Amino acid sequence: MELKQGIFYGVSVGPGDPELLTLQAVRVLDGCAVIAVPQTKSGETLALDIARQAVDLTGKTILPLAFTMARDEATRDAAHRAALAVLAPYLAAGQDVALLNLGDVSLYSTYGYLMALAQEAGYETVMLPGVPSFCAVAARLGIPLTRGNQPLHILPAGGDDLTAQLSLSGTKVLMKAGGHMETLLAALEETGQRAQASMVENCGLPSEVVSHRLTAGDTGYFATIVVREERT
Amino acid sequence: MELKQGIFYGVSVGPGDPELLTLQAVRVLDGCAVIAVPQTKSGETLALDIARQAVDLTGKTILPLAFTMARDEATRDAAHRAALAVLAPYLAAGQDVALLNLGDVSLYSTYGYLMALAQEAGYETVMLPGVPSFCAVAARLGIPLTRGNQPLHILPAGGDDLTAQLSLSGTKVLMKAGGHMETLLAALEETGQRAQASMVENCGLPSEVVSHRLTAGDTGYFATIVVREERT
Repeated sequence: MELKQGIFYGVSVGPGDPELLTLQAVRVLDGCAVIAVPQTKSGETLALDIARQAVDLTGKTILPLAFTMARDEATRDAAHRAALAVLAPYLAAGQDVALLNLGDVSLYSTYGYLMALAQEAGYETVMLPGVPSFCAVAARLGIPLTRGNQPLHILPAGGDDLTAQLSLSGTKVLMKAGGHMETLLAALEETGQRAQASMVENCGLPSEVVSHRLTAGDTGYFATIVVREERT
Repeated sequence: MELKQGIFYGVSVGPGDPELLTLQAVRVLDGCAVIAVPQTKSGETLALDIARQAVDLTGKTILPLAFTMARDEATRDAAHRAALAVLAPYLAAGQDVALLNLGDVSLYSTYGYLMALAQEAGYETVMLPGVPSFCAVAARLGIPLTRGNQPLHILPAGGDDLTAQLSLSGTKVLMKAGGHMETLLAALEETGQRAQASMVENCGLPSEVVSHRLTAGDTGYFATIVVREERT
């Protein structure tokens, strides 16, 4: 008889407030014996801290995974392969493994890379969608992101051509603005939109900061800026 | 003694699967005496059908609201004012009212308009974020929407300048593609991206249809198309 392999889940935990987990995420995490979570260099496991407040993880195997922020693709690929090597024995032994992801798993997440490697290795993978940071930020600011037929542009603050992207019609969201504030403020000034920009740092976390106007200065990594066409 | 007014909540119920409600949405709906929901001409209340499977709504006051799809702003504004007039007596009497919204409440929702009117009338409003259709669609297709520093452009299929918007770098999502398929297919052909497009209709509903390739023909109103830079 063939041993049934485990399923490799990518579970969205939302941006910070544990109440933003979906019923589906709670159910699947309840049923997973193994919980994997990205860990920062300083040992923080933010997605785990969030999930732990919504789901009882007692007795589960917790696997902190170190990923690199290196720009070099080979270095990052090696980190992804090393992470999968940590998870694979559990999947092979028939245990379901959940990798926790901040925000929604389809957006700028590590799971996408590991999912591809896991599929290559013959494992079943399932993505569980969640609340992206920008939706939680809009709710926190109390503003709609789009009306009528307005487009919405989600732009990583570290991306190329920011001034051109900020000139697009519609609403713009700048993700992971921390460490890029000087460049961002210059691009917002250049496109005449600084007055339409609002920011939430660490949305839903105890360290949350809401700024209805942008000022110069350092922000946390998880700072999200919303730039509207007009301030209503 | 002043009577405490009710709170007017905009509650996201996600795109279709009742398990995509957040814990927060379930808690708030549990506590609201009055549930308002957009109703189509034919009497359908899809957001209510979804919420009902996740929360026991027995004994609550259900208020179906008729909105117009008219392009004329005055007509739409009149419909929004009429809807608020239905809700306001409950708020004034101290009852919390939840307006159900498909997907996430900050994106293309009716709540935004009613929220502004309710605030003008002096009521407290609260938005509860949720899972947008495109995140659920990406999960259903099993594909990441963005990697690295890729932008993501959310485009209503009925919007202007589709060919220009589809030429932007990054991933494109076409929302509410139903009724626009002929124009969309032409724009995708023109920008050489038809082979990179996938579609999910009625994601998470019993009537869900997943198309990894686009074909001509009618689709439901809630069809979401993902156009990737490359098909991996």
